[in-house]
Order: sequence, then structure tokens, then C-alpha cells
Amino acid sequence: MITSKDNASYKRVRTAMREHRDEIVIEGPKAVADAIAAGWKPIPLPAFSPTLLKSITDTKTSQGVIGLFQRPRWKAEQIFSRADALVVALDGVQDPGNVGTIVRLAAAFDTAGIVLLPGCADPFGPKAIRASAGAILNVPIVSMAADELLATKKSIFVADADGSTNDLPAGILVLGSEGQGVSPALRGRAKAVAIETSGRVESLNVAAAAAIFLWRSFRRRTGA
Amino acid sequence: MITSKDNASYKRVRTAMREHRDEIVIEGPKAVADAIAAGWKPIPLPAFSPTLLKSITDTKTSQGVIGLFQRPRWKAEQIFSRADALVVALDGVQDPGNVGTIVRLAAAFDTAGIVLLPGCADPFGPKAIRASAGAILNVPIVSMAADELLATKKSIFVADADGSTNDLPAGILVLGSEGQGVSPALRGRAKAVAIETSGRVESLNVAAAAAIFLWRSFRRRTGA
Repeated sequence: MITSKDNASYKRVRTAMREHRDEIVIEGPKAVADAIAAGWKPIPLPAFSPTLLKSITDTKTSQGVIGLFQRPRWKAEQIFSRADALVVALDGVQDPGNVGTIVRLAAAFDTAGIVLLPGCADPFGPKAIRASAGAILNVPIVSMAADELLATKKSIFVADADGSTNDLPAGILVLGSEGQGVSPALRGRAKAVAIETSGRVESLNVAAAAAIFLWRSFRRRTGA
Repeated sequence: MITSKDNASYKRVRTAMREHRDEIVIEGPKAVADAIAAGWKPIPLPAFSPTLLKSITDTKTSQGVIGLFQRPRWKAEQIFSRADALVVALDGVQDPGNVGTIVRLAAAFDTAGIVLLPGCADPFGPKAIRASAGAILNVPIVSMAADELLATKKSIFVADADGSTNDLPAGILVLGSEGQGVSPALRGRAKAVAIETSGRVESLNVAAAAAIFLWRSFRRRTGA
């Protein structure tokens, strides 16, 4: 059983927790089992002492079990090939809890996938993975620049108080940060869509807005 | 300018941040100004040194300004007197970010107010206040036991995968913790309501579910 912080496998896990660039960490027995069941290949690890494990993951989340996996890589075609469904593009959404919650919503409402524009929190970081509640395993996610998104020639929608409140047809829904909103390059090429509110708040939390838009799109497509 | 952690006003602010029982702290110049504009009475404080202020609040949120206020107390009648609107009751919702986001949604979708059943995070704690994005100032909130809620004789709804997916009429929507759900005492007396999903997730985040239910109720009432 590994007890030293100088151990190479320990350092590798710690790097994956912090950087989640090529390898990522999944925490908890159920989440690790689900990842393997979803076809993710675990990277063999030695057993770490409880003290060592506690230094990188909180006991409540991991319950003493973590798995190290290759970071999944999706292709843009896997997202844009579905003609009927909505794609969500996040523009500068910095909070990993919001990003993970939107990954969960994308699975719940069968969104084609998520495009990360610059300035977003990484959905494969520990906090975002927890917020995704397992959905990170099967939602296609790609990173892209705004001009690549425009090059897809799909219909683009952005949330705006003055926009249409009708249901969204298929296309790309861009959600921006609450402070900055969506970048002007995209805004200028997009149709404005809105969620009716009482006017007693200036804006909605980005994950709450996503919940309403994605559910409406799902219900329209399934005819429920 | 106060520089000592032994200062009585400093201790009072620190207690309010931690316990938020009778006095609460609002952070940031805009939030403090909004609280005063909403009729909240600030409790006079001496100026604290930047170092001292930094020891209780992060600079980004406070921008060097905090206000100490009496904790607002609402009466149950202020919530239950509105015949048309939905009331949200939270049952064991422990995450302050979720509680604050639901306060924000209650303002956005003109909900009559929020009932806190046992086991919820305090909406007047710093993290929940931040998540409410100012809505904490004008959403009526009361604490109540399950049997007091039943004694109101209002229609009670709980989210359940097998429930009706129709729009909610006026009444009380009970949202439980994601792990435990709604307590059996309430569940047995409630009508089940549901949000259609793809079935690819076991549940929705409680604030995401609230977003969809409250928006639907708002749209039904306003006929939008």
C-alpha cells in the first residue's frame, strides 16, 4: 500500500485532479463502476493508504475509491451530425458547478452535445464532474473557437431579454457568462431568444436558463 | 479605522457571517445599496482596515464594502395569502448554492414565497445570499414543520418520475434533497408531478427542476 507523496502514481493522480488535461479522476465506487460500464478504460493504480487518498479527495465523495482514466476526446461531427437536436455552446461560463450542471441537463434532455467556447471551466475537473452526476460519461463535449462555430452554418440562438419566447427549433444555443454575456462576434450572427420573467431579477443563473431552454427543446422534439 | 480582531463590531460581523441568526451580512456596494433601497435598515459599523475586511470576506465579492442588517422576518400569511401563485417548500435541501438559486428563481417567476422545512441550508448565509443575486431582498421566506404545512390545507405537489406532466395549478410545490427526496409524511399527502426527461439521468439538480416548474407556473398564470 502506497503511503508516500513521492510515489509516481500518487503524483500522476494529483496532476490529473489539478490539470485534467490527458487523464482525469473519477471519484466514488458507483461513478467508477459506471465509467467502466460506459466503456472507459481505467489506468491501473496501486492501492493508496487512506491518509494519502484523503490528501487529494474528500472522503464523502470518493468513499475510498477513485479511478484514473484517459480523458475522452469527442469529434465535432459527433455533435453536429444530429439534425433534430439542440447543441449547447458555452461562452465564458467560468463556474465549474454550472458547467457540470449543464452537462447533466444535456443528458437529461438529450441534447446533441456541448461546445466549449473560450473562457469556460473544464467539465472534466473534479467539481464539474461531481455536478454532472455521472452525465460526463456520455455527453459529447468539444472545444471550439467562435469562428469555427459560425462555420458550421447551423442556426445560432442567444438568450436576450428582447428575444422571441417561442420554442427553439434545432440549432446551437449559446449561453454566456452572467457578467459578460455572449461575445459580440456570436451575438451579431444569432437570433435572440428569451425566457419570460417577472422582471424582478436582472438575469437568471446560466444553468437555470439552460434547464428551461433544454427542457422546452426536448418536449418539442418528443412531442410530449 | 479598526485594525484589531478584538474589536466588538468586527466580532459582531464575523458572528453574523457564520451564524446569520438575528443579523446578516450583505457584501458588495451594489448589494448593500439595493438592500437599503429595499427598506432594510443598516446597523452602523466603523470602518475596518482592508486586511481586517479581507479576513471575513473575499475581496472580489465585497469590493471593500459590507453592510450589517437585521435578519428579515416574514409571516406565513405573507406567503399563503396569494391564491393564484405557487409556493415553493424545500425539504432537506442542504446546499446553500441551490437554496440561493431557488430564491432567485422565486423572484424571477413571481412565486409567493419559500417555505423552509427541516434540514435546509439557511438562505441568509453568505453563499446562499450570493447565489440569490439580490433576490433575497424581496422573496418572503419562512421556516415551518411538515405538519404546519399540511395544516394550510393547500394543494401539495411533489416531484416524482411517475407524476403528471401537466402544468401546476396554484398550491405548494415541495422539492426535496437529491439523495433523500421528500419526506414520507408529505409525500403521502401530495400529488405527484413530473418533468419529462430522456431517462439518461437518475434525477435533476434541485435548482434545475425548480427552474422548469416555476417558469411553467409563471407562464400559465401570466398567459404568456
